[in-house]
Amino acid sequence: MANAPLFIPLILGTAREGRRSESVAQFMFQQMQALKGVETMMIDVRDYHLRGTDNSERMAVEKRFAKVVNEADGFVIVAPEYNHGYPGELKMLLDMAFDEYAGKPIGICGVSDGGLGGARMVEQLRLVAVALRTVPINQALYFSNIDKGIDPAFERRSIKFFKELLWYAEALKAQRKKSIFIS
Amino acid sequence: MANAPLFIPLILGTAREGRRSESVAQFMFQQMQALKGVETMMIDVRDYHLRGTDNSERMAVEKRFAKVVNEADGFVIVAPEYNHGYPGELKMLLDMAFDEYAGKPIGICGVSDGGLGGARMVEQLRLVAVALRTVPINQALYFSNIDKGIDPAFERRSIKFFKELLWYAEALKAQRKKSIFIS
Amino acid sequence: MANAPLFIPLILGTAREGRRSESVAQFMFQQMQALKGVETMMIDVRDYHLRGTDNSERMAVEKRFAKVVNEADGFVIVAPEYNHGYPGELKMLLDMAFDEYAGKPIGICGVSDGGLGGARMVEQLRLVAVALRTVPINQALYFSNIDKGIDPAFERRSIKFFKELLWYAEALKAQRKKSIFIS
Amino acid sequence: MANAPLFIPLILGTAREGRRSESVAQFMFQQMQALKGVETMMIDVRDYHLRGTDNSERMAVEKRFAKVVNEADGFVIVAPEYNHGYPGELKMLLDMAFDEYAGKPIGICGVSDGGLGGARMVEQLRLVAVALRTVPINQALYFSNIDKGIDPAFERRSIKFFKELLWYAEALKAQRKKSIFIS
Repeated sequence: MANAPLFIPLILGTAREGRRSESVAQFMFQQMQALKGVETMMIDVRDYHLRGTDNSERMAVEKRFAKVVNEADGFVIVAPEYNHGYPGELKMLLDMAFDEYAGKPIGICGVSDGGLGGARMVEQLRLVAVALRTVPINQALYFSNIDKGIDPAFERRSIKFFKELLWYAEALKAQRKKSIFIS
Repeated sequence: MANAPLFIPLILGTAREGRRSESVAQFMFQQMQALKGVETMMIDVRDYHLRGTDNSERMAVEKRFAKVVNEADGFVIVAPEYNHGYPGELKMLLDMAFDEYAGKPIGICGVSDGGLGGARMVEQLRLVAVALRTVPINQALYFSNIDKGIDPAFERRSIKFFKELLWYAEALKAQRKKSIFIS
Repeated sequence: MANAPLFIPLILGTAREGRRSESVAQFMFQQMQALKGVETMMIDVRDYHLRGTDNSERMAVEKRFAKVVNEADGFVIVAPEYNHGYPGELKMLLDMAFDEYAGKPIGICGVSDGGLGGARMVEQLRLVAVALRTVPINQALYFSNIDKGIDPAFERRSIKFFKELLWYAEALKAQRKKSIFIS
Repeated sequence: MANAPLFIPLILGTAREGRRSESVAQFMFQQMQALKGVETMMIDVRDYHLRGTDNSERMAVEKRFAKVVNEADGFVIVAPEYNHGYPGELKMLLDMAFDEYAGKPIGICGVSDGGLGGARMVEQLRLVAVALRTVPINQALYFSNIDKGIDPAFERRSIKFFKELLWYAEALKAQRKKSIFIS
């Protein structure tokens, strides 16, 4: 019997008008749709934006997000670096679940107009990933100078990224089935 | 002629309903109102919340925030730690200005239900502070176990915090007058 | 046939005379010796100290360290926080291997004279852990106010720490056997 | 009366044989020697290497280092990134002083064989800089792909780096004279 596919949603982590990260998210999404044994979906932070600050709206949105996180076997996040950190709207989204993340890997793609490809954001986000009880993988993709478009070399570079992500996704899914994550 | 007072706004960095950081912000605000030669105001992230994600709303809110940042001689931020990082709504606010921050100090107060007082959030926020061309001061206040209230010892502890903040605020204000910050 | 035991060395990450972390390392080592299905050994950074800066000494020491790392199924690190970072001698040791770390979990215990238990050091070290292609687990133990000794509550707290560490160690060992780690 | 010159030592932060950061340090040192109103010296971590781990050697080396730190008005650090962190020998050196750093700026140059110029190391080191009660400036120089040599564009890029460093060095020296740093 074939294994059930791994479900790896992609999170687009900026809601700003004119966001260049959207093209990177589309690029990564296409790569992910071509991966064997993987199902994916695009999660756009815009669709989880809180209009206000009261709890009733928050709880409804949290419930919607937590459901997807619960079904996931891992995550890809595509996000720009703003002032060396992650976008606020991405953090608001990630903070909307907790239990559902446990024991799942996260791969991060940084996006930047400059030459460092969001590397500082990736580091900060990795620490959040550990706090969420996920596994931030070693491979990352740094989309530098995004105003000039996506370097075609990222097709090749993404191979190692996905290999590591799926290596963990497979291992940890098997372990989650065998033994409840305790932490 | 007496020096003009230093203007040090306090930023309350969470918008969540039931936020415990509000009591810490009130506590710090009272200390700040008692400081000689200092003027302050409370900046509540709730008052800068973006209802949507289009640029017209953003630009109006950015303009309002940038005006306060421009007038400031330094900042105090009070914020909880969520999953080892800063609240998303705080980051969204901080990203709404840039030029106006240059050469001004920031003191950070972490708030947490646990025993570490938001120390990890403080570290991440310090790196954002450097990116914003501000000076993250060494002293920080870690309000641990906030569900049990504010330890009165923070009155004493805040003295060193404010001394360092004002030491920088005074030095850098003089330098900003003398020579344009270039970076 | 019974599974082979998991080999989880403990690294004591400071070489300083009078180091208080040694008592924490001893405490943790005793807990680890009592874990079923686990074999351990103490790695003291002092035993890998480089007398000079030439390559011949370095290569011999690297070879010795890499051998242990290669055999390990995971790691526990006990280290103090110095100026919010990790001790230099610990970093020198960790940098002495690379390939041998891939796909193994690391649990970190922070030690501090202050009240934050080395939490900032733990965060910095987690990022190094990701760079080394290991998995920094979520659980950490923060030994605060170590000049007053070790709180007996850490016996209970360490249970969750080890449960998570072994959860990953077991899962990743199985995966390393099944499929070469590629990254 | 002319102001006394600012004393800004440059710290070369790796002791490894074959270190490529040495050429970057030499490059920066030459720029610094040409700065008006600045005196400098090269501090090589190799000259502060501890042969053993006993306190008597440490105390002698600490005393020697603390003397230079005390006289300094700011610092430039040139260091490679090893596994996303700073070299252990650099951290061992920096931890050898404390009081002497207070209220002085630090500019950091990252060095890397890869394309990110040591950006992750710079971030970790900035947090250590804050812990040491120094001011990590916003500008940083990222020497990427150092195996291919130093891009001549760094002559121009270093202008902004030094402008910001001296802006702080001057402001904080005046303030240290006027008022003892308290923290």
